[in-house]
Amino acid sequence: MGKIEAKLHELGIELPAPTPWPAHLPLIPAVRVGNLIWLSGKTSKMTGKVGRDVTVEQGYEAAKECAIGLIATLRDELGDLDKVKRIVKLLSMVNSTDTLTQQPQVAHGCSDLLVAVWGEHGRHARSAVGMASLPGDATVEVELIAEVD
Amino acid sequence: MGKIEAKLHELGIELPAPTPWPAHLPLIPAVRVGNLIWLSGKTSKMTGKVGRDVTVEQGYEAAKECAIGLIATLRDELGDLDKVKRIVKLLSMVNSTDTLTQQPQVAHGCSDLLVAVWGEHGRHARSAVGMASLPGDATVEVELIAEVD
Amino acid sequence: MGKIEAKLHELGIELPAPTPWPAHLPLIPAVRVGNLIWLSGKTSKMTGKVGRDVTVEQGYEAAKECAIGLIATLRDELGDLDKVKRIVKLLSMVNSTDTLTQQPQVAHGCSDLLVAVWGEHGRHARSAVGMASLPGDATVEVELIAEVD
Repeated sequence: MGKIEAKLHELGIELPAPTPWPAHLPLIPAVRVGNLIWLSGKTSKMTGKVGRDVTVEQGYEAAKECAIGLIATLRDELGDLDKVKRIVKLLSMVNSTDTLTQQPQVAHGCSDLLVAVWGEHGRHARSAVGMASLPGDATVEVELIAEVD
Repeated sequence: MGKIEAKLHELGIELPAPTPWPAHLPLIPAVRVGNLIWLSGKTSKMTGKVGRDVTVEQGYEAAKECAIGLIATLRDELGDLDKVKRIVKLLSMVNSTDTLTQQPQVAHGCSDLLVAVWGEHGRHARSAVGMASLPGDATVEVELIAEVD
Repeated sequence: MGKIEAKLHELGIELPAPTPWPAHLPLIPAVRVGNLIWLSGKTSKMTGKVGRDVTVEQGYEAAKECAIGLIATLRDELGDLDKVKRIVKLLSMVNSTDTLTQQPQVAHGCSDLLVAVWGEHGRHARSAVGMASLPGDATVEVELIAEVD
């Protein structure tokens, strides 16, 4: 078991099993160029708008869901999570009412888990912002760039 | 005629002629660093919000417009579209009501054309999300990163 | 005094003093990989939604605030602003009503200052788009990628 896999186990995080990607889709989960990998936006299964349908605390859990999905994509793409050198950048998009001001508190749900897993190498640049709406009414969608070995 | 230009011809896609970029603007259509090129967001000429003024199907056509504009920018910047090695990442921003859930179905209008043109090398990472509003009330705006030779 | 620092002085721009970054946050101001640096989104101190609480002209000033914050981050990260080779890409996010159409005119406040400081090397790829809401009700948030020596 790799170091990061062991850390996930220690944190009680179980990654979803790899699932075949629908071949008809024009997009793919990730594209790597050199030592950088761009991941497609991962939406939470939790639905509803923060500030109206779900609380900031629930939104935090939705963002954590996104982190788990993103980590699973990194595992599926790289084969071994120890190949992730560092998390570079997140765009954390929160399904928001037009008066929500706490997008960072929601987005921390994803960011905190990445730091719990990768430590200092998990700390990243980030924007956390309010979207008018998201696919399938997802509560949060996060896209990620990582540096890989 | 290059391979990609021939493909565009086969698909019946005509790219707009290059137009001089307004010199007073602080932004430019694209910036290249090494083998990566970042393109400025391209807005559709189609206007109106998906879910209120225009349908998802019309939004798909707006996103296709964005693809054509982005491909034209790549041609203008690189001189030859065969220099595009692969499409890396799209941020597809849909002018959305606060209840729209079908941003992916709109964004496919751009993504599908990129795949029709570049095949497997056209498949990309993507987020497709709902914006409160866009410049000039454009229906869709897409920004793109590509890998180039 | 470096060339860029002298330029800032000439423009009458005073950068804020470096402040310690809160160690408990999972995000950091910037991450560098090779010759690229990604900066976290910088929000304006000005608050309120463009098109309802603040005018486009006021929004321009809010975007200028973001530029000053981003330049300060570049100085803090790189030690010397002359190490910035060029500004690559901005995502300029405007706290917008659902009918605002002038996001570019707002975003120019950030872009114009970058060009005033770095000249041709300050011109960048950009998207300027309308967000449902932003952290702390900020009027503008801008994230930036730069190429560095």
